[in-house]
Order: sequence, then structure tokens, then C-alpha cells
Amino acid sequence: MSIVKAFGAVSPTSGVAAMKIERRKLRENDVAIEIDYCGVCHSDLHYVENDWGITRYPIVPGHEIIGHVTAVGNSVTRYKPGDIVGVGCLVDSCKECSACDHGLEQYCENGMVGTYGGVDRIDHTPTYGGYSENIVVREEFVLSIPETLDRASAAPLLCAGITTYSPLRHVGVKAGDKVGVIGMGGLGHMGVKFAKALGAEVTLFTRSKTKEAEAKKQGADHVVVSTDAAQMSAVANTFDYLLDTIPVTHDFNPYLKCLKYDGKHMVVGQLSPLEPALGLGALVTKRRSLMGSMIGGIAETQEMLEFCAEHNIRCDVEMLDIENINQAYERMKKGDVRYRFVIDMKSLKQD
Amino acid sequence: MSIVKAFGAVSPTSGVAAMKIERRKLRENDVAIEIDYCGVCHSDLHYVENDWGITRYPIVPGHEIIGHVTAVGNSVTRYKPGDIVGVGCLVDSCKECSACDHGLEQYCENGMVGTYGGVDRIDHTPTYGGYSENIVVREEFVLSIPETLDRASAAPLLCAGITTYSPLRHVGVKAGDKVGVIGMGGLGHMGVKFAKALGAEVTLFTRSKTKEAEAKKQGADHVVVSTDAAQMSAVANTFDYLLDTIPVTHDFNPYLKCLKYDGKHMVVGQLSPLEPALGLGALVTKRRSLMGSMIGGIAETQEMLEFCAEHNIRCDVEMLDIENINQAYERMKKGDVRYRFVIDMKSLKQD
Repeated sequence: MSIVKAFGAVSPTSGVAAMKIERRKLRENDVAIEIDYCGVCHSDLHYVENDWGITRYPIVPGHEIIGHVTAVGNSVTRYKPGDIVGVGCLVDSCKECSACDHGLEQYCENGMVGTYGGVDRIDHTPTYGGYSENIVVREEFVLSIPETLDRASAAPLLCAGITTYSPLRHVGVKAGDKVGVIGMGGLGHMGVKFAKALGAEVTLFTRSKTKEAEAKKQGADHVVVSTDAAQMSAVANTFDYLLDTIPVTHDFNPYLKCLKYDGKHMVVGQLSPLEPALGLGALVTKRRSLMGSMIGGIAETQEMLEFCAEHNIRCDVEMLDIENINQAYERMKKGDVRYRFVIDMKSLKQD
Repeated sequence: MSIVKAFGAVSPTSGVAAMKIERRKLRENDVAIEIDYCGVCHSDLHYVENDWGITRYPIVPGHEIIGHVTAVGNSVTRYKPGDIVGVGCLVDSCKECSACDHGLEQYCENGMVGTYGGVDRIDHTPTYGGYSENIVVREEFVLSIPETLDRASAAPLLCAGITTYSPLRHVGVKAGDKVGVIGMGGLGHMGVKFAKALGAEVTLFTRSKTKEAEAKKQGADHVVVSTDAAQMSAVANTFDYLLDTIPVTHDFNPYLKCLKYDGKHMVVGQLSPLEPALGLGALVTKRRSLMGSMIGGIAETQEMLEFCAEHNIRCDVEMLDIENINQAYERMKKGDVRYRFVIDMKSLKQD
């Protein structure tokens, strides 16, 4: 066991501040990682402020981790000290259930272990995330970061990246498909890049006409202003897939009508209940689906990282020193970030 | 053009009564059919009473039609006088769009033509359904009824049958899959039979414990009383598919939790909006889907008829004389039919 520096919260209103946490001694299949960069996900803020009512304090957020290996357990074969590695949203699962057998550890039927806010399967201690000097993770849940990826901008790929890549791959987006991406924040801008790289014709749906130029810079072929009924009508029945990244409750009905028969509306950005009444007629009369998707499995996350290296895809990031994290949260609440904050963990070491 | 006897409604409150309608002269690709049996679908009642606000009176309901061919147009090759045939929910579509190309005429991008309440694509006259002496239908939309099928009980296959068969086939239900059927009326009891014949382990969800014996007689392996929280918890995360045949607004959330990861909740029985807030977390955290499905294409309907002949599947019906149709509607409103009324059209001819 070792005591390490971290930043975390001790109550819903305390904000994130310096603290000490314990990291476990290396197990034989563990990898010890010194953290170089950590992305700041909207979930971090939800956990810190206990928006979902599930936070057990103290909480150390951070599940978009890039670092380098400092030590490995005796049975570790895939990594050695010095390797550049990543850790995403999960650090363990049962590896025995049907979901795990299918590479879907995120849907583990015995419960995946979150990188923070979870409970270790062996010693039952709480898990602490990436706003810290280092982390110890089971080998199978460590990702290899391709050499050609810029490390800082690769951090958000481990959550924002895989969250958008996985559903697009799951439904088999291919050249010629029409994909709409709803919302252009941390997830949405990655969705546009991935859908484009997969060969789709990509439309960004946004409430704000001002995002048009930016959306096209990100790779969108078209922009539809979702509050403009005429623009929405003009694209009725035309999309194969919609990737919905909006993180708050909104009305799905206008979007469902934009799908072709057999079209799929894929929700990745919202866990709160859908309040406006859903028009089931839109589903029934065209065999449309409303589906959800959550992050991705480990093998698919590795595939996504290779895909980013191959297609030169990166997350647009703004670098941050850890002492400014509470201000960053305030800016995130206002949507004032293009498109993801990444903490340079050198700032923690200098603290 | 010929004037024929029919039963129809002229206002939302008139009930169904004897009337005369016009049937078109045979076009070269038309089949003229004398109607022997016509099933009574809940949609008939909705149309008669204008529950959906789309009825143009007069309306002649009936889209579960079994009859025999009396004449064919010059270019008709598939049918000859004397053949036993069926007509379901649609009598025409563009046959040129992507949906039609994929055998999904029910989702025709230029609009399918309903058997009643529709508008003919060529002469723009209203279409009238099966509560009548005969009907004239484009050859491609006429089904061949296998000889071994009992004709009267085959009628509801053309709507209740295909509506449940199509989604089960679309998602590929196979031996070993766990399928839940929600509700056991005209659609639900067919869903149980089809899911069982496809090899699935079938569970009926019902609010009423009294339906247990009947559900097992229909082929269900298990029955879950949906109002019993303990029974619902016991089957959490276990189903591959749910076929939801409930025709009125209800809460989907307890059912969604019964699905495994990647599970699909397939709605066939409800067109009204979903009022209770949908818990998107249930979709996102297990990649579950809520999808709709509406009847089926013509080729798939023919496949379903052959499947019924092969597996000796029939709809459970109660025979009805046409003069009792309004009483039958009243009984349907109370759910008092096991499981489908079928009109013996001899009663119209004797009228």
C-alpha cells in the first residue's frame, strides 16, 4: 500500500481539493501507472456533486487516464515499465459472464468496477480515479496507447471517444450511411469525427446556428438547426442513425421522425428519465428503435485507439492545471469548453 | 365498377350498418375476390369510432380477409378463379422505393395503401375493407392460403399473425432465446405460439394470475404476473426479447429491466404516446432497445402463412354473424373475446 497525492471531494458542496489516498500494493496481474494526463468528463462533475445520488465520499474523479507504466506484477506479460498506457471508465469485471465473454465488460452481469466510485472485487476498498499521481490497475483493463497518438489529446478518447465510437461500430456504420449527430460537445464532436472516418454522410443537429462553421471544420457535411421546424421537416425520414449526445432531458420526437424505416436513435449522453411523452407511433410505423449505449468494452476501446491513430483522429482539448479544476467545472456547466479539459498532471506533482 | 353489399360506419357514433359500396372494374393486374371470412381487428373499432382522428366516413372496416378468387385481370399469372386467397392490411404500395425493394411494403416511403381508409394510387377513390361481399386487389398484394390451413381461423393471421411474427423473425428469434410476451389478447396469444414454434423459451407477462393455465395451454413455458414486484425482480436481466402487445398506454420501465444486455423491447400493440417517463438509464446501461414494428411485408406474410401450415398454428377464434358486429365491438372493449372474432361472410349474403 502506498499513500499518494490526489484531488477529490469530500461532500457535494466542497469542490475538489488536494487530499491523500491509498493505492494498493501490486497484485501479480496488476500494472502500476504514473499518470501524465487526465481528461475531465461531465460524469466527474456529476459524481462530485452527487447528482445521481450514488456518490460515496471521498471521491477522486477521473476516468480518462494516460500515463506510463512504473512497475508490473509477476504474471503481467503485456506491459513493462516505460510503456505509454491508458485507463478508461472501468478497471475490473467478472470476466466470466456472458457479457464479459462477448467483450462487453461494461455490461458485466456481475457488475463492472468503475475507475472511481466503485468497489474493488478482491479487497472491497473504494476505487479512486485519475486526478492523482498514480493508479494500480488489473492488466486486462489497461489500454496500450499507439505511439503516434498525441498523449494529452488521447486522454478523452478513453471515455468521450469510446462512448461515441462503440455504438457507431455496433450498428455497423459504413460508407454511404446517413448519420446525424445531435449536440456538439465533448461527445458530439468525437461522434462527428468517427462517423465521418467510417465513411458516413454526417449531419450535425444543433440548436445554435453559430456552430455551423465549427461543425463543418470537425467534418460534418451538413448542419441542421434543430429548433427550425422547416429544416427538420426537410430531413424527415432520411437518416439511418442518430447519435444523441445531449446530456440533459430533451424531446426525442422531432428527431425520431428524421429516421428512415429501421433507423436507430442511439442515446449516449443522457441517463435522466425521458420526460416528454415519447410518440410510439414514430417507432411502430417505421420500425425505428430508440437504443442506449454506454462506453465500450476493453477490446473495442483498444480498437478505437488504433482507429484514431490510423485516421489521425484526436479530441480537441484545453489543457488545465489541477488547481483550476473547480473553475473548469463552472465553465463546463455553461458549456464553455471546446471540447474537453485535460489536466496536465505535472501540476499535481508541483503542488 | 359494381355495387356491392357491405357493412360500414358513416359517423363516429353510428355503429356499423348495412350499406352499398362501389368496387372498381378489374385492372389487368387485379384479382377479384369473393370474401368468405373477415377477422375483426381492434383497429376496425378505432377507425369506426375515429379514435385516431384520421377516419374519412363512410368507412368499411376489415383487413383480415379470406376468400376465393372469382376473376383475374389479363396479366395476372399467380392466381386463377377458385383459388383460396387472403388480403391483409395493405392493398398497394409504390413498389419502387428502398423499403418496397426490401420487401417492406408496410413502410413504403411513398405511403402504403391501407385495405380500408386508404386512397387508391391510380383513381384516388377511397379503399373499403373486408366487411363486404367482395374486394378487388392488385395481384402482388394477394396472399395464397395454404390448403391445410383452416380458412376461418386463418383470417386473423393476416393482421394479428403477421404483426407478431414479423418482429420475432426480424430480430432472429431462435432456439434457446428467452422471449417474453406482454399481454395475451389477439396479438399476444399469437406471439406466444410463434415464439414457441421458433424454439424460444416463452414467458407470458400478464396482470391477471387467472390467465396462467390458459397461457400454458397456448404454449408459454412460464407466466409472470406483472403487478407482482417480486416476480418481476426474479426475472430481471434475463430476456433477450420482449414482444409488447398491450394496446393502451402503460409503463415500460418495469419491463425494460427484465431485458438482458442488448435486449429488445418490441412494441406492436400501441400507437398512443408513451406517457410515463421512460427511464433512459435502463436503455443506456445495458444497450437495450425500445423498437416498434408494424404488420409485415407481403413476402413475409406469405412466409408466415406457410409457417403456420407447417407448424399447425392457428388463431383461436369466435365466429360471428355480421349483424352482431356492434355487440362484438362492445365485447372487445371489455376484452371479452378469446381471442379474435371472425365474421362468417355468409351472414352478409343472407342479410
